[in-house]
Amino acid sequence: MIMAPAGAKRNILERLDAGEIVIGDGGFVFALEKRGYVKAGPWTPEAAAEHPEAVRQLHREFLRAGSNVMQTFTFYASDDKLENRGNAQRFTGAQINEAACDLAREVANEGDAMVAGGVSQTPSYLSCKSEAEVKGIFKRQLNVFVKKNVDFMIAEYFEHVEEAEWAVQVLKTSGKPVCASLCIGPDGDLNGVSPGDCAVRLVKAGANIVGINCHFDPMICVKTVKMMKEGVERAGLKAHYMVQPLAYHTPDCNCQGFIDLPEFPFGLEPRILTRWDMHKYAREAFNVGIRFIGGCCGFEPYHIRAVAEELATERGFLPAASVKHGSWGAGLEMHTKPWVRARARRDYWEKLKPASGRPKCPSMSTPDSWGVTKGHADLMQHKEATSMDELKPLFEKAKASH
Amino acid sequence: MIMAPAGAKRNILERLDAGEIVIGDGGFVFALEKRGYVKAGPWTPEAAAEHPEAVRQLHREFLRAGSNVMQTFTFYASDDKLENRGNAQRFTGAQINEAACDLAREVANEGDAMVAGGVSQTPSYLSCKSEAEVKGIFKRQLNVFVKKNVDFMIAEYFEHVEEAEWAVQVLKTSGKPVCASLCIGPDGDLNGVSPGDCAVRLVKAGANIVGINCHFDPMICVKTVKMMKEGVERAGLKAHYMVQPLAYHTPDCNCQGFIDLPEFPFGLEPRILTRWDMHKYAREAFNVGIRFIGGCCGFEPYHIRAVAEELATERGFLPAASVKHGSWGAGLEMHTKPWVRARARRDYWEKLKPASGRPKCPSMSTPDSWGVTKGHADLMQHKEATSMDELKPLFEKAKASH
Amino acid sequence: MIMAPAGAKRNILERLDAGEIVIGDGGFVFALEKRGYVKAGPWTPEAAAEHPEAVRQLHREFLRAGSNVMQTFTFYASDDKLENRGNAQRFTGAQINEAACDLAREVANEGDAMVAGGVSQTPSYLSCKSEAEVKGIFKRQLNVFVKKNVDFMIAEYFEHVEEAEWAVQVLKTSGKPVCASLCIGPDGDLNGVSPGDCAVRLVKAGANIVGINCHFDPMICVKTVKMMKEGVERAGLKAHYMVQPLAYHTPDCNCQGFIDLPEFPFGLEPRILTRWDMHKYAREAFNVGIRFIGGCCGFEPYHIRAVAEELATERGFLPAASVKHGSWGAGLEMHTKPWVRARARRDYWEKLKPASGRPKCPSMSTPDSWGVTKGHADLMQHKEATSMDELKPLFEKAKASH
Amino acid sequence: MIMAPAGAKRNILERLDAGEIVIGDGGFVFALEKRGYVKAGPWTPEAAAEHPEAVRQLHREFLRAGSNVMQTFTFYASDDKLENRGNAQRFTGAQINEAACDLAREVANEGDAMVAGGVSQTPSYLSCKSEAEVKGIFKRQLNVFVKKNVDFMIAEYFEHVEEAEWAVQVLKTSGKPVCASLCIGPDGDLNGVSPGDCAVRLVKAGANIVGINCHFDPMICVKTVKMMKEGVERAGLKAHYMVQPLAYHTPDCNCQGFIDLPEFPFGLEPRILTRWDMHKYAREAFNVGIRFIGGCCGFEPYHIRAVAEELATERGFLPAASVKHGSWGAGLEMHTKPWVRARARRDYWEKLKPASGRPKCPSMSTPDSWGVTKGHADLMQHKEATSMDELKPLFEKAKASH
Repeated sequence: MIMAPAGAKRNILERLDAGEIVIGDGGFVFALEKRGYVKAGPWTPEAAAEHPEAVRQLHREFLRAGSNVMQTFTFYASDDKLENRGNAQRFTGAQINEAACDLAREVANEGDAMVAGGVSQTPSYLSCKSEAEVKGIFKRQLNVFVKKNVDFMIAEYFEHVEEAEWAVQVLKTSGKPVCASLCIGPDGDLNGVSPGDCAVRLVKAGANIVGINCHFDPMICVKTVKMMKEGVERAGLKAHYMVQPLAYHTPDCNCQGFIDLPEFPFGLEPRILTRWDMHKYAREAFNVGIRFIGGCCGFEPYHIRAVAEELATERGFLPAASVKHGSWGAGLEMHTKPWVRARARRDYWEKLKPASGRPKCPSMSTPDSWGVTKGHADLMQHKEATSMDELKPLFEKAKASH
Repeated sequence: MIMAPAGAKRNILERLDAGEIVIGDGGFVFALEKRGYVKAGPWTPEAAAEHPEAVRQLHREFLRAGSNVMQTFTFYASDDKLENRGNAQRFTGAQINEAACDLAREVANEGDAMVAGGVSQTPSYLSCKSEAEVKGIFKRQLNVFVKKNVDFMIAEYFEHVEEAEWAVQVLKTSGKPVCASLCIGPDGDLNGVSPGDCAVRLVKAGANIVGINCHFDPMICVKTVKMMKEGVERAGLKAHYMVQPLAYHTPDCNCQGFIDLPEFPFGLEPRILTRWDMHKYAREAFNVGIRFIGGCCGFEPYHIRAVAEELATERGFLPAASVKHGSWGAGLEMHTKPWVRARARRDYWEKLKPASGRPKCPSMSTPDSWGVTKGHADLMQHKEATSMDELKPLFEKAKASH
Repeated sequence: MIMAPAGAKRNILERLDAGEIVIGDGGFVFALEKRGYVKAGPWTPEAAAEHPEAVRQLHREFLRAGSNVMQTFTFYASDDKLENRGNAQRFTGAQINEAACDLAREVANEGDAMVAGGVSQTPSYLSCKSEAEVKGIFKRQLNVFVKKNVDFMIAEYFEHVEEAEWAVQVLKTSGKPVCASLCIGPDGDLNGVSPGDCAVRLVKAGANIVGINCHFDPMICVKTVKMMKEGVERAGLKAHYMVQPLAYHTPDCNCQGFIDLPEFPFGLEPRILTRWDMHKYAREAFNVGIRFIGGCCGFEPYHIRAVAEELATERGFLPAASVKHGSWGAGLEMHTKPWVRARARRDYWEKLKPASGRPKCPSMSTPDSWGVTKGHADLMQHKEATSMDELKPLFEKAKASH
Repeated sequence: MIMAPAGAKRNILERLDAGEIVIGDGGFVFALEKRGYVKAGPWTPEAAAEHPEAVRQLHREFLRAGSNVMQTFTFYASDDKLENRGNAQRFTGAQINEAACDLAREVANEGDAMVAGGVSQTPSYLSCKSEAEVKGIFKRQLNVFVKKNVDFMIAEYFEHVEEAEWAVQVLKTSGKPVCASLCIGPDGDLNGVSPGDCAVRLVKAGANIVGINCHFDPMICVKTVKMMKEGVERAGLKAHYMVQPLAYHTPDCNCQGFIDLPEFPFGLEPRILTRWDMHKYAREAFNVGIRFIGGCCGFEPYHIRAVAEELATERGFLPAASVKHGSWGAGLEMHTKPWVRARARRDYWEKLKPASGRPKCPSMSTPDSWGVTKGHADLMQHKEATSMDELKPLFEKAKASH
């Protein structure tokens, strides 16, 4: 196992305060869906109890790739959620949550990583339950994480800043460092609160680290965190910043992110970022001042490794998995064909515009969210004014006068 | 563990003779490269000894996805190859090969799968070594597989049919069923021998199953196997057929396949096939009469699962991992957004033309193999005839006469 | 010759005040460049004197297509401009300007069209000449148009609203109706003045009709005029609105428009709008409240005809050239192939996503304007931090500790 | 008017025998459709009589661009064809044909151009009329051309070589040089006769010049003519060669050419070739040994000018319209923006991959010809085997056994 640098196992805030870079992991539901252990649609994490070897292996791969954070695989792991997905489960929510915490801790202890527990947005908030009820849900989840003594907490994947504030207020009661991460883009949350204003509210609610995860591609997420940072600084406040974007290109998304894309979730392959896209992402995130840099849906271990390789000089070391890589394609020097050996250089991969091999597919999609079509319907109505039937007498007139 | 159907563990030839479908696994070097255990360039399989848990886990995922064949992770695992890759290895070739056989057998025994040992093309052939020398290499590799008692042998990834014939002749001495699989396209092997003629020669050399693997996308590979089958039938011979293609779209490849594409091997993401592409592939392969259907580089477990789901009615059962899927996106019925629930149907995914999210990238590339450029250079020379300097007097003339 | 509707030859303001639609013509410099009479680069209009038959024919085609406005072909036709283009001219600027006015009037009299004289931005403004000097240039141009008694004046193609104000102030002295049209997008003029503020200033300077021409595609131009209209209405002012966009798709332009695209001006073909794109444009412009609707660079007669056909019911008649069309492809009913006959319907063409036939080309470009690259250079500098040389000791460290 | 080179007005065979290059014109029906004078669908040439000024102007533009051949605008100009298009015509077929011959001669006399009369494939052949009947049609058309004393004859746009042979036999009776041009690709005529065999049959029938026009893009057409030339040479015969391709990219066509593309005829804009594509075409055609080089549908005057400019050194002069060009974008040296001036060089335009500005459109289409779908229907039927209903019991089984 690679040696952790001096100062390993310090608290995330100690690291960030010291100016260090903390590298997150990738999204487990998407990665394990491809491996056959998670069902797209319900997206529940019963695999933590059903197939611990698969979850443990994925944690290990991210650790090897350079992650300092093992997020417990507990997404959507409340009993109500697990039940309403229609399948009688073989394990209770508590069993799943505890198994997930144990797996994360086991692997974190194999290297220089911390364990992070997480909560995310609730159906209860969307169905207009009271602040007390929603906070009660977060509190029950927090109890497990406190019992298992995770290192810090992440409130992530919130589309409404108000609910995220409630989550932060609950998580702060644990005394652990708290991250707050929204799944919004530059247009702000679903009520139109700007990224800058969202960040200010989250910091005021007690978050130590604020940022963005999921829903958009790396460059859009970094841009949004930059807007959050500017808001916090304008308000005379202080915070650390995090970003955990998709590993999919989403230039064509509207404010709701990749879920509205017609390719979600089973046709996203052509959008997967290359490792070289990740170099650009890591550099851009670093330049903007973000120091907790990770990934969400679509990230595979090699994507995290690329982040760690881009920031290797700043961190002072490479991840274990780089032994099986060679920076910027250097391993290709050992390829049998000379024109492939000629690709063992940074310049080649930085400039490459990779083809899709899909000449009958477009490069961008029209997002597919219902209810946004009113204006379009109006337009259609206008258009109907010039039907071909109506034009017939005009044609006769044109011919006659010609 | 899912119950294997009646008749499990029969020999591959018994299965194929009975008209059954045998599903292969995916390519280990590419999958493990993304997980951080294989180095692109040398592509050697030392992970079988170094990180057995990672290799075991990948075998298990393919088994869960429906594979009936566990190929030993022994690609390029001869001592000379391992050594000339420049790194002092911590394990000998023998240790790696034996570890790989043990891992494949361990997981095969957990379900209805056979173990296949493999040999592939040698540097010795390309450097014009004698038939005896090349056969000696195959013989030494075979000794390990016989010792470990694999169920059958695959001679795969040959660009020259002559070398594949030699391999088949050696493998036949084991008494085990022998597959012969070339990495060529419809234009034939690198000496221009047509797919039909290649197949006839391989069957005459003793191969029980002939086909294609790697280098091209599924539809091109199936087309090439079809040409092989037609050749065999024209010659009045009999054989079974196999196909294990790339999981990348390669409509723009020349005769040397995806290695010449500028995206090889670190920019292939936009070309990755979706699960729905795999449904089409599996159906087309079945319709053409191929019954050993698997994958090569780029295949992840969910790709093999899609093959198994497409052929579920023919096989009479679904793979274990389908419990975490739901055919044709059915799991989306449990999604929270109504427009995503509306995607839980076959028709939606069959018609989808997935966008790349890369509007500044092309859809097809120009293959990049050196030595094919002579004609192009000639053309350039011709073009130089109309330099701008030469045209100056003609412009003066044109202006004057105008 | 087609009969003009009742009320022909009324003043443009009478028409617009009566709620009528006025259809403009297309851009002459691009159309005549393709026909061989204008030189790209200098873009001067000496063809009005050199090849009057070519200019007259293009006027006639636009008239047939439904144009109510014949713009004099006098772009860049001041003596200084003509001279500094390096070629000794066979005709003086005055000869060219007068010839252009005569051609426009000759064809306008053949149908229901008005003659519009035009001035556009000057090199003098960019080189910081005084208001008096710049106004002097406009005044000298205006003298010709007054002498030839054009029906109204257009100040068009201004990137700075201040210069456009000066032009409007000069043109108002003629007593003729004055249009003011900027070549800007939603980001405003090159000093960052918003479209709404630009419009308010132009109306206050005396413009009767304000809007946008050139530099961007129809949908972007319509959006910009909408912003102008909102600005004027917010200010409690009144005006009419015009739009004369490019016939090229420009989703990838920055604030300077299509001139920065790498395809300008000799590789724009793949961006040319179809006639069906023009239907959408005409409808959208009408819906937004624009009533002077025309075209600029890239428009060919069939594009203007499509505008006229989309608005035929509102106008009450079709253009003469529609006799050679048949709305929405109706003429195809007489095609010999049944599957082409099946395309003789609106639904087919509205839904078509036309392919480029260029699989090795991207769909969007990176604009190419110098001086915008500072930020990029900074980024590059940051990136250099992780050179491959610096990484070597880190690799050694990673290997050793692994 | 530009001076014709010494030897002007010699016969086309004298020119070709002397090794000279003869440049054709572009397709009139498509160019005049965009100008508003031809109706897509019937594609009849009544404009020759109705609007002679428009037809004369187009002839002049091609002459200025470098054409040595004025083809009479007589496509589909037989009385029966004109009548069955449903419109009572204001002019008889004879009037139209004679007007077209006069216009071509008038403009040809203004420069170094010959007049070519033309016949093309007949509905009679497709409806299985006798050889005598079909030849009778050609004979009646020929009578007009003989009366008007055209310089040579072109039998063009034939999909079946047999009918082209009949046409050649008739045209030979005039004593004038005869060209035979098929609208086929490398797959041969619609009966599957190869390009090489077609060419041999046409030469044996008496054609002096053989080649290809319409239906495919320049590179495909040149490739097909090359196959014709190889066939003629293999047969020990002698001929001259011609090519008049589309100005549209058609890499995705099947054997029937661009008519089957979904974009035909009103959505072809994104496929239009640039002038730089034409340079490549002209050079390639010349290198293959073709000496009568022109264009068909989609060619505008500037496309022909690009052909003439590419071959200027071989011909020894530039066309008149080059005065308004400047080879390889040289005129841009006079542009106001420095980054546009930097594009005034060959290297820039040769390497440019022009974007379509249409990120939601594909780059290639699926041709749309009915009757080719039988195989596809079969495939669909196979697919239906795995309906979701059939899979339900298999899911239950998989869950139970898991």
